[in-house]
Amino acid sequence: MSKWQKSPSRRQFLSGSAAAVAGSMSAGAAAAQTPDPLITQVQDWASYAGDGVDEVRYGLPIRFEDDVVRRNVPWLTADPISSINFTPIHALDGTITPQGCAFERHHSGAIELRKQDYRLMVNGLVDRPIILTYADLERLPRVNHVYFCECAANTGMEWAGAQLNGAQFTHGMIHNMEYTGVPLRLVLQQAGLAAAEDLSNKWVFVEGADASSNGRSIPMEKALDDVIVAFKANGEALRKEHGYPVRLVVPGWEGNLWVKWLRRIEVTDRSVESREETSKYTDVLANGMARKWTWVMDAKSVITAPSPQSPISHGPGPLVVTGLAWSGHGRITRVDVSKDGGVSWETARLGTQGQTKALTRFYLDTHWSGEPMMLQARAIDETGYVQPTKTQLRELRGENSVYHNNCIQTWYVNEQGIAENVEVS
Amino acid sequence: MSKWQKSPSRRQFLSGSAAAVAGSMSAGAAAAQTPDPLITQVQDWASYAGDGVDEVRYGLPIRFEDDVVRRNVPWLTADPISSINFTPIHALDGTITPQGCAFERHHSGAIELRKQDYRLMVNGLVDRPIILTYADLERLPRVNHVYFCECAANTGMEWAGAQLNGAQFTHGMIHNMEYTGVPLRLVLQQAGLAAAEDLSNKWVFVEGADASSNGRSIPMEKALDDVIVAFKANGEALRKEHGYPVRLVVPGWEGNLWVKWLRRIEVTDRSVESREETSKYTDVLANGMARKWTWVMDAKSVITAPSPQSPISHGPGPLVVTGLAWSGHGRITRVDVSKDGGVSWETARLGTQGQTKALTRFYLDTHWSGEPMMLQARAIDETGYVQPTKTQLRELRGENSVYHNNCIQTWYVNEQGIAENVEVS
Repeated sequence: MSKWQKSPSRRQFLSGSAAAVAGSMSAGAAAAQTPDPLITQVQDWASYAGDGVDEVRYGLPIRFEDDVVRRNVPWLTADPISSINFTPIHALDGTITPQGCAFERHHSGAIELRKQDYRLMVNGLVDRPIILTYADLERLPRVNHVYFCECAANTGMEWAGAQLNGAQFTHGMIHNMEYTGVPLRLVLQQAGLAAAEDLSNKWVFVEGADASSNGRSIPMEKALDDVIVAFKANGEALRKEHGYPVRLVVPGWEGNLWVKWLRRIEVTDRSVESREETSKYTDVLANGMARKWTWVMDAKSVITAPSPQSPISHGPGPLVVTGLAWSGHGRITRVDVSKDGGVSWETARLGTQGQTKALTRFYLDTHWSGEPMMLQARAIDETGYVQPTKTQLRELRGENSVYHNNCIQTWYVNEQGIAENVEVS
Repeated sequence: MSKWQKSPSRRQFLSGSAAAVAGSMSAGAAAAQTPDPLITQVQDWASYAGDGVDEVRYGLPIRFEDDVVRRNVPWLTADPISSINFTPIHALDGTITPQGCAFERHHSGAIELRKQDYRLMVNGLVDRPIILTYADLERLPRVNHVYFCECAANTGMEWAGAQLNGAQFTHGMIHNMEYTGVPLRLVLQQAGLAAAEDLSNKWVFVEGADASSNGRSIPMEKALDDVIVAFKANGEALRKEHGYPVRLVVPGWEGNLWVKWLRRIEVTDRSVESREETSKYTDVLANGMARKWTWVMDAKSVITAPSPQSPISHGPGPLVVTGLAWSGHGRITRVDVSKDGGVSWETARLGTQGQTKALTRFYLDTHWSGEPMMLQARAIDETGYVQPTKTQLRELRGENSVYHNNCIQTWYVNEQGIAENVEVS
């Protein structure tokens, strides 16, 4: 028995305090009439010691958070080795995505590659073809940056209508981590890429050590700009499924270019037109023509709570609406939220000032009447671009696309606070 | 057998490239004479599929990184329930610390407290004592901030001389995470703390739900400034050992104030003079008097690589020296690095612009002659404060202290690249 239970007057005080909260914030003020049965229970921890510190162990989330994990949708792909799982964005807050729940996408499974065995070839139109070891990479100057990585197929199931019920599944092919690595331009310089040479028509072709190789062409202008040959994410080594020991980070551009287990960079004078940039990662338009080289992820946002997996757990009154916004073109400058399906908008508060090509958290601190809502968010980036409605996007692109669906998402929230993926007609 | 092994001419090319690297970056150019036996091996991953995506699982680091874990020093404390383990800062880069390897310090063990059972009392000199549930907290406006949390005892073993051989053990009682939570001032306002009232002589006394309760007094000025009642770290729920579901974040101030499993906030008109702020967390000076209310963590830095646990793994030539710097008074504006024990200094490059009360990564991209070095770093913060030498600190504070040792650390690096914790006399 704790000291709290031995003091009736103290218990009475606690019940009275609970009433004050109930009155100010909760729907059920009637609860104030009876002492909260949990009030004695919550003090029990003071009567015994908890767990000691780990001597040598890598920690995991507490068991009560077992549902906050990445999840696969088994019917989405034919085989788990060429498949995807989704970040539980509905349950996260802030902007950083822990590696342990950051979405995975593999084309031929995640390979296990030791640092000692790692080799990175730089060849093609360079003065001096080289192969770098992991230790060689560690000797070059490093940079740190937080960037989002979004699969081009994120929200891809929603072109034809509301399909998947949950922000994790509609928008969870995204993560946001602090990367550490060597600027790609410094790696290219090691191979003698001449700074004076005309590089305007040059490309790099990058590929991974896995069986898919996942080769992609990147224009030299981007390669020399902000691309990173990265070996750490959120401070620690890349996880196996994120490309250990080395992956490419291509800020603002579609995730397929962020080649994992990076093994080769070839400087070329033309694009390679690989499978991953012709039959895949292109968009068939309404007229049958296909868009290609759609590298940049346009400005986009989603409300993560309330959402289908994160219903409102209380009655009318104060409500925090929160979500994520991002743009491959730079910083997010504003996010608007609508409760009526886009008829009227309120400007949300940004958790921190938008960083270039990184997730931005937004909040609308509002009051819920208890009536149904049609919740939407729209992102605006530093170029002035405004996230489009699904109708606007379909007018331009039809309904045959898979990739680059950045339209405004709608959640219908009913009187019970339950949210559902819907379309505004 | 991979395609690489079937093509002798291609293999020959690879060996030649390896030679180019060896010549430019490695000590042993002789290695160029024989083909690297790993070159065929590294291509094997292309011949089979890797692991499929996880259906439902929280990921862990790859097994090759099993040594990058927090570690306890068993002889340091009498019992693991009142003990500490250390962040493996020698193996991390960038600035974010993953929760799974962020140091733990408990006074009576880590307790297991469900969100449903969580209660936060705000009482004392307030108009309306309240008890908030976790759901109540979620209805208040939230903020996101990256802050470092450093135990006051970090580096505490080093007062009398070089004791522990490794940055993890000398400086690993620190972590740096992105916190999400409710500003403490908004929680106090819920209890009716009058904004107009004279609060200049008021304090809050904060305590945890664990058996130690770990009660601490905080001046009202700080409580109303940047203190956060936090429930997420690096995007996800706080881990059990970091205070799940709610801890206090007291930016720039010693970690003992960052009360975990926060259960009560009492507004008072005096400090409580608890055990944790009288017999502990005070510093006995040379004259026998004790310093108290030493809340702020002064500017400090440490070189994380090379360091005793991260030796130089290559010969003379390009070398990246890297480390962390931080200040409880604000931003880090400059870090200097010395290779000769403080005789001469070079200004390091900051990984990103210093953020207030957060870890800043620094790099010195340098050339190693192969001669022994006495490596040191010194941090300078936005107030102009310069991190002191151990001699300077001892002149002021003697050698009886445990807490607040922010002196310059020295690593002696020998011709083999092995580093050792030493003192400059």
